[in-house]
Amino acid sequence: MKKIIAVSGSNAGDGNLTEEILKIAEETGYLIAKKGGILVCGGLGGIMEAAAKGAKKANGITVGILPWDREAANSYIDIPIATGIGFYRNNIIVNCADCIIGICGRWGTLNEIAMAMGIGKPTIIIDGSGGVSDLLSKKEFLQTFKKSPIIVKSPKEAVDKAFSV
Amino acid sequence: MKKIIAVSGSNAGDGNLTEEILKIAEETGYLIAKKGGILVCGGLGGIMEAAAKGAKKANGITVGILPWDREAANSYIDIPIATGIGFYRNNIIVNCADCIIGICGRWGTLNEIAMAMGIGKPTIIIDGSGGVSDLLSKKEFLQTFKKSPIIVKSPKEAVDKAFSV
Amino acid sequence: MKKIIAVSGSNAGDGNLTEEILKIAEETGYLIAKKGGILVCGGLGGIMEAAAKGAKKANGITVGILPWDREAANSYIDIPIATGIGFYRNNIIVNCADCIIGICGRWGTLNEIAMAMGIGKPTIIIDGSGGVSDLLSKKEFLQTFKKSPIIVKSPKEAVDKAFSV
Amino acid sequence: MKKIIAVSGSNAGDGNLTEEILKIAEETGYLIAKKGGILVCGGLGGIMEAAAKGAKKANGITVGILPWDREAANSYIDIPIATGIGFYRNNIIVNCADCIIGICGRWGTLNEIAMAMGIGKPTIIIDGSGGVSDLLSKKEFLQTFKKSPIIVKSPKEAVDKAFSV
Repeated sequence: MKKIIAVSGSNAGDGNLTEEILKIAEETGYLIAKKGGILVCGGLGGIMEAAAKGAKKANGITVGILPWDREAANSYIDIPIATGIGFYRNNIIVNCADCIIGICGRWGTLNEIAMAMGIGKPTIIIDGSGGVSDLLSKKEFLQTFKKSPIIVKSPKEAVDKAFSV
Repeated sequence: MKKIIAVSGSNAGDGNLTEEILKIAEETGYLIAKKGGILVCGGLGGIMEAAAKGAKKANGITVGILPWDREAANSYIDIPIATGIGFYRNNIIVNCADCIIGICGRWGTLNEIAMAMGIGKPTIIIDGSGGVSDLLSKKEFLQTFKKSPIIVKSPKEAVDKAFSV
Repeated sequence: MKKIIAVSGSNAGDGNLTEEILKIAEETGYLIAKKGGILVCGGLGGIMEAAAKGAKKANGITVGILPWDREAANSYIDIPIATGIGFYRNNIIVNCADCIIGICGRWGTLNEIAMAMGIGKPTIIIDGSGGVSDLLSKKEFLQTFKKSPIIVKSPKEAVDKAFSV
Repeated sequence: MKKIIAVSGSNAGDGNLTEEILKIAEETGYLIAKKGGILVCGGLGGIMEAAAKGAKKANGITVGILPWDREAANSYIDIPIATGIGFYRNNIIVNCADCIIGICGRWGTLNEIAMAMGIGKPTIIIDGSGGVSDLLSKKEFLQTFKKSPIIVKSPKEAVDKAFSV
């Protein structure tokens, strides 16, 4: 059975994405597919699109769990799952994945990471990717919780962890 | 963008499945894939497994929207989406598909068909496939409603309709 | 702990409601409250409004699990729960209740009744109230299933059953 | 129409609750009810129980949106809504409320606050109540986001804001 890895991160227009951060997402998607994993994400733009683009470069399979309609799917999504339940769909992304990788992000990513941690799903954060991912990587943040996500420094480390947890 | 067609029907053990009915489901799945569609179903046994088996014979893609854990997926499912929300997952099956084909079935299928009709999703019923599908094909039943599902007599007719509605 | 009884039935505008049918719903709501139960419904018009009106006449508590916004709640709802998930909210109505009473209805009611039967929630249908409730009361219909809902002939019988199952 | 105010915070056993923090929750619940609001929460222990206890002292109405079964409801809940969808129920708490007040908390509270901020629901955090609420009140945290929750210092200030936003 193939591993299913979720990538969670900012949508296009969230205002905290740079070319460098999008490259991190693309490389993460590429490595997930290269190792034979299925990429799951929220199906929209920004980090989600970059990760899906990377996965397709390695001929992987990409699933987009969309908030409302299928038309919002980015062009690298093979399997668009239009849920019609908006923000609630974040739960499906987290639930269906073997583990989740956080890259940059704002409130939506924080919502997904918090859910993943809350239900005990292996959670990996790429430190240095900006947004809430950088925040979640800080000691002051993590000491608030009994359990912490796994903090990594690169896409390679993230995907290696994703396949070994 | 590929068509996404949902097949809804009895699980194994529902007690109303025969070899003949399973052949109907398998042929339906086969034809969906043959025409380039993605098969979505509930991912479990019975009609869902037979439809997925058929789709894989035509090298199609199969998605199983599962009630709880991924382990319950039948062996023909490429993309298992483990939702963790039980019966609620029926709504996702209906919502993400372009149209839904009902084959045999009991309460779960009736739940999905009723939702599909309620939200105006094209709904096709194979008359002669047993269970609630036969019931839903009867005039006495259909006259209770303002709008009716499309009643067909064969997998071929069902899939042709699914790609033309 | 108070009993929670769901009433499921046609919305205003579904086109199959008469004064007589609305009286059945109102009396059902009245009796639920009279016996100390909490009425749960979909919060909208038609059967839902009539049942809530009846419950308030007996000083009961009424909960409306709404598909989208709170503004859609009828004026007899004490506790509007605006879910923002449309048709999916039917599942919450069924799930949170001790038992469900079907009155008249179309596809939405059929969806709720089918879910209730599917998850083994006690389900009571008032025969003679029109719509899918009359359909579900017919032998030809029920013989399709292994388990049947409880068929009753009056609000009094429905509510007595609801408090004894 | 009555205001519906959600209180989000640690469950009993989360390990970050003190008598003082529980008093904050109880006073918040009391003030919500005193002002005529309906208290909505997750229905379990800890902050949820303390807030509901406070609301009942002021003869308020308390709604518990429960993850699974009704039996888990604390003894101050008037209306237990057993959803059967686990962590997904957090979304209903956020969605049905006019605004949400965060007190202490861990991953579950962070999940709810992040969703509330993500969908633009007025969000109030009591600084000094411990857990993620203290974290969310810090400048280093908030500067990660374009929009911030409202940070207050006391239950009175929180509830005043809740009725004026």
